[in-house]
Amino acid sequence: MPGEFDFIDFVRSRQTTGDRVPLAAGDDLAALRFGSADGLILVGIDQVLDGVHFDAQLHEPERIGRKAMNRNLSDCAAMACLPAAATVSLALPRTMPVAWAKRLYDGIRLAGEAFDCPIVGGDTGAWDGPLAVTVAILGRAAGVEPVRRSGAKPGDAVYVTGPLGGSILGRHLDFVPRVAEARDLVARHRVSAMIDLSDGLSRDAGHLARESGVGIVIDAARVPIHPDVARLDDDRPPLEHAVNDGEDYELCFTGEPGIASAIRVGTVIDGSGVWIEANGARRPLVAAGFEHKLA
Amino acid sequence: MPGEFDFIDFVRSRQTTGDRVPLAAGDDLAALRFGSADGLILVGIDQVLDGVHFDAQLHEPERIGRKAMNRNLSDCAAMACLPAAATVSLALPRTMPVAWAKRLYDGIRLAGEAFDCPIVGGDTGAWDGPLAVTVAILGRAAGVEPVRRSGAKPGDAVYVTGPLGGSILGRHLDFVPRVAEARDLVARHRVSAMIDLSDGLSRDAGHLARESGVGIVIDAARVPIHPDVARLDDDRPPLEHAVNDGEDYELCFTGEPGIASAIRVGTVIDGSGVWIEANGARRPLVAAGFEHKLA
Repeated sequence: MPGEFDFIDFVRSRQTTGDRVPLAAGDDLAALRFGSADGLILVGIDQVLDGVHFDAQLHEPERIGRKAMNRNLSDCAAMACLPAAATVSLALPRTMPVAWAKRLYDGIRLAGEAFDCPIVGGDTGAWDGPLAVTVAILGRAAGVEPVRRSGAKPGDAVYVTGPLGGSILGRHLDFVPRVAEARDLVARHRVSAMIDLSDGLSRDAGHLARESGVGIVIDAARVPIHPDVARLDDDRPPLEHAVNDGEDYELCFTGEPGIASAIRVGTVIDGSGVWIEANGARRPLVAAGFEHKLA
Repeated sequence: MPGEFDFIDFVRSRQTTGDRVPLAAGDDLAALRFGSADGLILVGIDQVLDGVHFDAQLHEPERIGRKAMNRNLSDCAAMACLPAAATVSLALPRTMPVAWAKRLYDGIRLAGEAFDCPIVGGDTGAWDGPLAVTVAILGRAAGVEPVRRSGAKPGDAVYVTGPLGGSILGRHLDFVPRVAEARDLVARHRVSAMIDLSDGLSRDAGHLARESGVGIVIDAARVPIHPDVARLDDDRPPLEHAVNDGEDYELCFTGEPGIASAIRVGTVIDGSGVWIEANGARRPLVAAGFEHKLA
């Protein structure tokens, strides 16, 4: 990338220290100070790749950057922890204009800052490959036991936090991670298992079912279908889009019945697998969503 | 990549929990427990890219994986902290055989385990681009104030921990991160500033000089030249290779004179910049090494 040193200076100029960040990047590593009230430290990593998670020819760099950070913030939401800090690794095409890279970086940074999650370190490299943006995140439990995928019990209700499907029209880049919603839910209710919907309800509910050793029945009539689905130009039934499209980044969780601040879509049962029930008939809900995610 | 789910199962099967890792990957994030004796938490991220840091057609996957982890462990060494845990993000070419990816992953994992640094989470994606391996690391200060780049003082001696140059012949893949050496040095001596030599002595000493607001004079006669330099097939003077080649991953540090366990190569002076002195003449040492690294 022409101007790589200019870009690195730009990145450095945007890094700040604070109570939790006694040393920001500039050394080989940044240093963080966690207090005893922060509890467990949560860690994860998530990448977005050109041609898989975005199209660098088509999408604005700010949106690509935002997605890269927000996917990690969404992982924090899924565990009901608070984001604490992030590091960012960029593999930049040699032909990328430095101004474009700066917009990308600010997209990542501003998305983090909106959730009190500063970028504290990074690595950048120019190469002959396409753009890859990797964000590693640290969260803090901060008074809440991290919500796992494995706690669902028969009789629990299954919820989502918003309508599903058609994210490809743009929401996959512009979603808001449900960090605040997750903290609010666990503060007020018994939440037994949770995941964020990156791969689609069919697949992600399958993760909850398998990790919890239970079955999940989705009530077809209750699945909230996003208005975007009607704008898709194809013949597939709207419900199929809602359960399979993925990248909604709403939360799917199990817990006590009667939680009014989320949308109930089903029930946890004895057994295994994910099922969908419509007009009194129950059939397996076969996962057909995204398949690129590891954790 | 054919067999991506097989690969993900393989990755999961290798993740373990322990005292410091109450929750390993399998949820959206892993959870770590740090004690008060661990002190500050250090964080960083570092990537290796096909065609820049390795050649996937030429190099064995175990060595590529080892390099990806060891560069991060070397960053821990540079701050004199102890590695604690890592997360790994892999962008895998769609054509990559799953067996090759498993060897790559085990290379990363075993390199970490050699320094008590388990992989606790990750992300994997197949794409049309080349191989990119990103490792984010967490370290713990564990009783040692992290050594920064900014503490060098006029009168300090400048040291390196081993011979330099010619790493391209293979050492850039097979180096041993100087974690133990760094801990030993700071336990026994006053070490004022430190960095690991990824970009070459000329450039990395420049980082120390600039961050510390001092000058550094390298004594040409003292620079230890690695035997690999003699095996290089070119006409450049050996000293040039030693100061510019980069990717030695030895430590360069400043501190009290008389440290016998490292090789003294120079002196910190009032002023700025990096200088090289030979036969009583002093000239600027112009950085001409690697330029891809941000932090």
